[in-house]
Amino acid sequence: MIVRPRLSSLRLLFVVRGTILPRVLPHVLGIAALSALVVWAYRQGYLDLQISSPAPLSLLGIALSIFLGFRNNACYDRWWEARKHWGALIIELRSFSHEAIALLGDDSSGAKEAARRLARRNIAFAHAMVAHLRGNDAREDISRLLPEPEASRVLASQNRPNALLREHDRELATLLREKHLTDITWSELRTHVHGLMNVLSACERIRFTPLPFTYTVLLHRTAYLFCLLLPFGLAEALGWFTPWLAAMIAYTFFGLDRLSDELEEPFGTEPNDLSLLAMARSVEMNLMEALGEPQPEPLKPRDFVLP
Amino acid sequence: MIVRPRLSSLRLLFVVRGTILPRVLPHVLGIAALSALVVWAYRQGYLDLQISSPAPLSLLGIALSIFLGFRNNACYDRWWEARKHWGALIIELRSFSHEAIALLGDDSSGAKEAARRLARRNIAFAHAMVAHLRGNDAREDISRLLPEPEASRVLASQNRPNALLREHDRELATLLREKHLTDITWSELRTHVHGLMNVLSACERIRFTPLPFTYTVLLHRTAYLFCLLLPFGLAEALGWFTPWLAAMIAYTFFGLDRLSDELEEPFGTEPNDLSLLAMARSVEMNLMEALGEPQPEPLKPRDFVLP
Amino acid sequence: MIVRPRLSSLRLLFVVRGTILPRVLPHVLGIAALSALVVWAYRQGYLDLQISSPAPLSLLGIALSIFLGFRNNACYDRWWEARKHWGALIIELRSFSHEAIALLGDDSSGAKEAARRLARRNIAFAHAMVAHLRGNDAREDISRLLPEPEASRVLASQNRPNALLREHDRELATLLREKHLTDITWSELRTHVHGLMNVLSACERIRFTPLPFTYTVLLHRTAYLFCLLLPFGLAEALGWFTPWLAAMIAYTFFGLDRLSDELEEPFGTEPNDLSLLAMARSVEMNLMEALGEPQPEPLKPRDFVLP
Amino acid sequence: MIVRPRLSSLRLLFVVRGTILPRVLPHVLGIAALSALVVWAYRQGYLDLQISSPAPLSLLGIALSIFLGFRNNACYDRWWEARKHWGALIIELRSFSHEAIALLGDDSSGAKEAARRLARRNIAFAHAMVAHLRGNDAREDISRLLPEPEASRVLASQNRPNALLREHDRELATLLREKHLTDITWSELRTHVHGLMNVLSACERIRFTPLPFTYTVLLHRTAYLFCLLLPFGLAEALGWFTPWLAAMIAYTFFGLDRLSDELEEPFGTEPNDLSLLAMARSVEMNLMEALGEPQPEPLKPRDFVLP
Amino acid sequence: MIVRPRLSSLRLLFVVRGTILPRVLPHVLGIAALSALVVWAYRQGYLDLQISSPAPLSLLGIALSIFLGFRNNACYDRWWEARKHWGALIIELRSFSHEAIALLGDDSSGAKEAARRLARRNIAFAHAMVAHLRGNDAREDISRLLPEPEASRVLASQNRPNALLREHDRELATLLREKHLTDITWSELRTHVHGLMNVLSACERIRFTPLPFTYTVLLHRTAYLFCLLLPFGLAEALGWFTPWLAAMIAYTFFGLDRLSDELEEPFGTEPNDLSLLAMARSVEMNLMEALGEPQPEPLKPRDFVLP
Repeated sequence: MIVRPRLSSLRLLFVVRGTILPRVLPHVLGIAALSALVVWAYRQGYLDLQISSPAPLSLLGIALSIFLGFRNNACYDRWWEARKHWGALIIELRSFSHEAIALLGDDSSGAKEAARRLARRNIAFAHAMVAHLRGNDAREDISRLLPEPEASRVLASQNRPNALLREHDRELATLLREKHLTDITWSELRTHVHGLMNVLSACERIRFTPLPFTYTVLLHRTAYLFCLLLPFGLAEALGWFTPWLAAMIAYTFFGLDRLSDELEEPFGTEPNDLSLLAMARSVEMNLMEALGEPQPEPLKPRDFVLP
Repeated sequence: MIVRPRLSSLRLLFVVRGTILPRVLPHVLGIAALSALVVWAYRQGYLDLQISSPAPLSLLGIALSIFLGFRNNACYDRWWEARKHWGALIIELRSFSHEAIALLGDDSSGAKEAARRLARRNIAFAHAMVAHLRGNDAREDISRLLPEPEASRVLASQNRPNALLREHDRELATLLREKHLTDITWSELRTHVHGLMNVLSACERIRFTPLPFTYTVLLHRTAYLFCLLLPFGLAEALGWFTPWLAAMIAYTFFGLDRLSDELEEPFGTEPNDLSLLAMARSVEMNLMEALGEPQPEPLKPRDFVLP
Repeated sequence: MIVRPRLSSLRLLFVVRGTILPRVLPHVLGIAALSALVVWAYRQGYLDLQISSPAPLSLLGIALSIFLGFRNNACYDRWWEARKHWGALIIELRSFSHEAIALLGDDSSGAKEAARRLARRNIAFAHAMVAHLRGNDAREDISRLLPEPEASRVLASQNRPNALLREHDRELATLLREKHLTDITWSELRTHVHGLMNVLSACERIRFTPLPFTYTVLLHRTAYLFCLLLPFGLAEALGWFTPWLAAMIAYTFFGLDRLSDELEEPFGTEPNDLSLLAMARSVEMNLMEALGEPQPEPLKPRDFVLP
Repeated sequence: MIVRPRLSSLRLLFVVRGTILPRVLPHVLGIAALSALVVWAYRQGYLDLQISSPAPLSLLGIALSIFLGFRNNACYDRWWEARKHWGALIIELRSFSHEAIALLGDDSSGAKEAARRLARRNIAFAHAMVAHLRGNDAREDISRLLPEPEASRVLASQNRPNALLREHDRELATLLREKHLTDITWSELRTHVHGLMNVLSACERIRFTPLPFTYTVLLHRTAYLFCLLLPFGLAEALGWFTPWLAAMIAYTFFGLDRLSDELEEPFGTEPNDLSLLAMARSVEMNLMEALGEPQPEPLKPRDFVLP
Repeated sequence: MIVRPRLSSLRLLFVVRGTILPRVLPHVLGIAALSALVVWAYRQGYLDLQISSPAPLSLLGIALSIFLGFRNNACYDRWWEARKHWGALIIELRSFSHEAIALLGDDSSGAKEAARRLARRNIAFAHAMVAHLRGNDAREDISRLLPEPEASRVLASQNRPNALLREHDRELATLLREKHLTDITWSELRTHVHGLMNVLSACERIRFTPLPFTYTVLLHRTAYLFCLLLPFGLAEALGWFTPWLAAMIAYTFFGLDRLSDELEEPFGTEPNDLSLLAMARSVEMNLMEALGEPQPEPLKPRDFVLP
């Protein structure tokens, strides 16, 4: 996620880093070059443009704006929904851990140790979620946070966050059976496991179900064809202004198209993606504080990007 | 569902498989041919176009874009809502099974067997849902996963997922009566049955309540009439550019219209529909892992389509 | 609700039954006739049109499209929300009945009869809801399904679904007092009564709170005035094409306006309204199956309309 | 709220009462007069319009339509959300009262009287909410429905609905302490108090947090400036049609602006505001019926407006 | 938050304080000056504009309106969601405190003091939230409301609202262990702690996750470039009207852009931001009334702005 102090209007106009400009620049320059060529050819008489009105092109352009707008909206909704689920993850992990420590932490029996295990497994869950969604390996964090043989059991599973929730369920059922929890307090703690399952499934949904492929192709294609047609439609009406306007329109359309691509997959590592690592670290800090153990440092943005 | 590695901008322009192009191509070519004919006839003087401005056509085109955009949005929402309900299905099936196994699985009495039955019935529920929504027969999966006479009872019902939930309710009530569950733990497990009923009803709603038919007809008809009028409106202003632009506009409008048709019914077997079979298989894998039984292989996409 | 097998593109263009066409046709033809008259008068020199550009009209037309689109969206949301509440109704009625039968149905005491009463009252609730929302009389169904004196008590109330829920509450409290239910199982069953109250209130909200009247009038009026102005604005630019285009625009705007009117009140008996009778029948089938009693036949669509 | 039988298309065009027309008419007529003046001055040569194309004005008009549409949407959402909260109020009041009467009403001890007090306090809550949101005084209803000294305690508070919920909480805690309720049934009834607190806070939010003031000013101002510029932009292209079209555009924009103002504050007493009094009365009828006491008459609309 | 009595139409046109005008005025005047320069240069023949039609510019302007509209919508949604979470905060704090006082307040043992501590900690939570979101120091309020050593423990934490919830959990667990609460009443009170955790996490999400930076830059940049191009596109068609229209368009676009910036961060101290201090004060008033202690005065708006 890009984290910058708010810039002045003027500086916003010229900022490059962290924007979509570098990635769409070649395409935008291409359109500008094509426009210049068309205008030159037309002025030289090599090209006989029969287009007496840019209105039909406007129609297509407006239709395209409406559809691009809708797609952009849908992608932004995915991104924001993903962020909401990570918010819920933080809620559940904090609330679960506080509750477990408050309920079980004072006990003189083995339950105190169970509360600590639950909280540490919650930290491991956050790291395992990052790895699950980014296709990494959370082996190190899991081994660091969980005792054996649990760590091995979890690492053996293909869906590690799911396996961690199974361990939670097993631990809670044992605590219930050994009367450290009444069925009410068990049920209260169990709610959080269900909440975490909720987050896991919702994130998997966003991660593995892209926007319908046809939709993406249809709009991408129309946007490119439209920008390629633009110079022919504008050359007569605008003359040497054509390259400027065509470039601006191309910048807006390609930029929005590309930004939608990035927002569609909010769990990746591109600059506009969510800062999962920083959130997992913040969970670890909160829970280590609750356990009274030393906290790690918060992650800092590098080049204005929080990983 | 179409699953492809992300393509480059250029390849996206030329990809054919998995897009809407093949299906709308005949219509698009028809509009292009009509345009060519109109321009030719007009140039030859056979046709006296009195249309001196394409602006009125633009008005209709923009109105149409707005309405098509709304319809497309509504259809996409149905598709995404359907996917959310299947996400909830996965949550409930996993969470229910984990909880049942944790609560009942350690018992030396018959309750351990009950936990296994609940988890296997959950797998059967996923397969029965696929069959219910796609109009198939889930006979094989139900017979494979459920003991007799339950399998026969379920197969005798017209609404098999509903019958499976009734079996769940019966089993849970028995467990409560025989004191394997307290009323609190029973109530906790019962929540999941209610959650599954929720998913079942919501999917039936999406499956059996299409968008208002009048809406579909109104927009489909206006889109076609508009594209048929286009050549007459553009011929004078655009000359031989008319076929290109008319084809592009037709491609966008017909493509969006057709895509909305597909998204409206997300449970079918067209390329953009949800991959119900793959999700049911994934549920089976998760639950078989939880039961410690051998897991089936995950479904692989064929021709980039996950069934 | 209109239920048709999916038609081909071509047939969709010419289908009449179940569409809005018959109802807006007179208005559309009126606009076409007015257009012809205007063009004729203008060509004959009887009318001196000073409108040299249709652009200002376009502006109004586009503004109108945007506002009509919003209204249509709001009406569709009401329709779809209504359908969701009926989905929730089905969920609660099924889930409640299954649970009551599972919990109480095995008892040798009078509780078995109570479970049957609860399920039959649930069927009566579905029928009473249809009658409440459509302004009918559910006397017959209530008398058929409920014992005396309960049936009379319910029929004496002005809000019969509400009275049925009161009877549910009374029955559940009695079961709790007589220890057929623990307070947990009572609370679990009571949740469904609350859920049904939810559905009742939400449906009353949609039924008795129309869209702000001013909104409807404002858009209806602007749409008509706009279509009446159209011929004057287009006659010079389009000549004898005017009647065709004006008719098409009128068809789109009037059709959307009328469709929004229908969707605004989803509980009526117009073709696009929800098929409440069919849903109530389907609930009766499900619950009669759960009770092991003979099921009625499902309702069939007549002329593609499911009542 | 305006409640009218559905009018025919024709009558909708000419209805005046209950519409926004009377309030925007002076402004619309002003724009028409200005237009006539501009056209006259231009025709006489007193005014030298250099505007050769109305297209730039169209651009501003369309941008404005989009922004007005968004604002209108936001205001309608507030109105509809307010109605939903009042729906929730009705649900909670009915459900709470039914449940309290069913649970406590049969008791021979003092609990029966407590159920009656709870139900009557619920009626008072509905009236106090109306007064709280409309800035009235609910003194009369509170004194009529509550016993002393409770009525005085409530009337002494600045936030009377909040004070009533505190009384509910006190009563329920007493019932729990005196064992008329188990902790489960107490918790079940307490849920409704929380639900009512929810409604109270949500209504306060809508009532006391208007749309950002800047937003309202920005759009209001742009709409007026735009309509003042219109005659200058249209006079050359439309001639004596200008006043008609300018008036229509002004009517649409001013009407929507004004309607949004009304919907923004749904709890007032303007014609399109919610009929809080009628809803509170209907709650009183339902609960008096449940208590077996005489019911008041329902409120009737006066001049098609339900207060 | 700006709180003004509703102004008349006319006064709304000229109000300055509390609007966006002062901040965008320099930019708007700049565009107007540039326009005048361009028109002058063009009239003098120093500038040879080849732009024969403003239609292409319109296309870009409309596309931009659609995208600005979407962004504005997204920012407004953030603002309104933030307000909803503060509504939930008020609900939970009131409901939690009422319930705690009702349940524990009558006790003769130490539990009465615990209820008072819970309510006072709730007030501290509201103030700590304001400080957490605005980057202030809530030291004074926390020291005033909490006893030592709790106040020091809370002040030592980096996330003070989170630390306060941990104290809540500890207190509730102690009350459960000492049998002042049954597990049901504990679980009921605990729900509110979870609700507060919910609010805390949601507000942190809105506070620390801005809209994707690229989105903001893309639209800001396009809006400025568009307004800079405007004079060149309009000069020929509009002549000396150009500065007026260009200024109006610039006012609308820059105003909306700037307003979106403000709404994006609803927790700041700009005029359109939420009045967190006033809400925290109102919570303190409600809870002090419930405790029977002296209430502070409500905050008054200064210059129509409620802090």
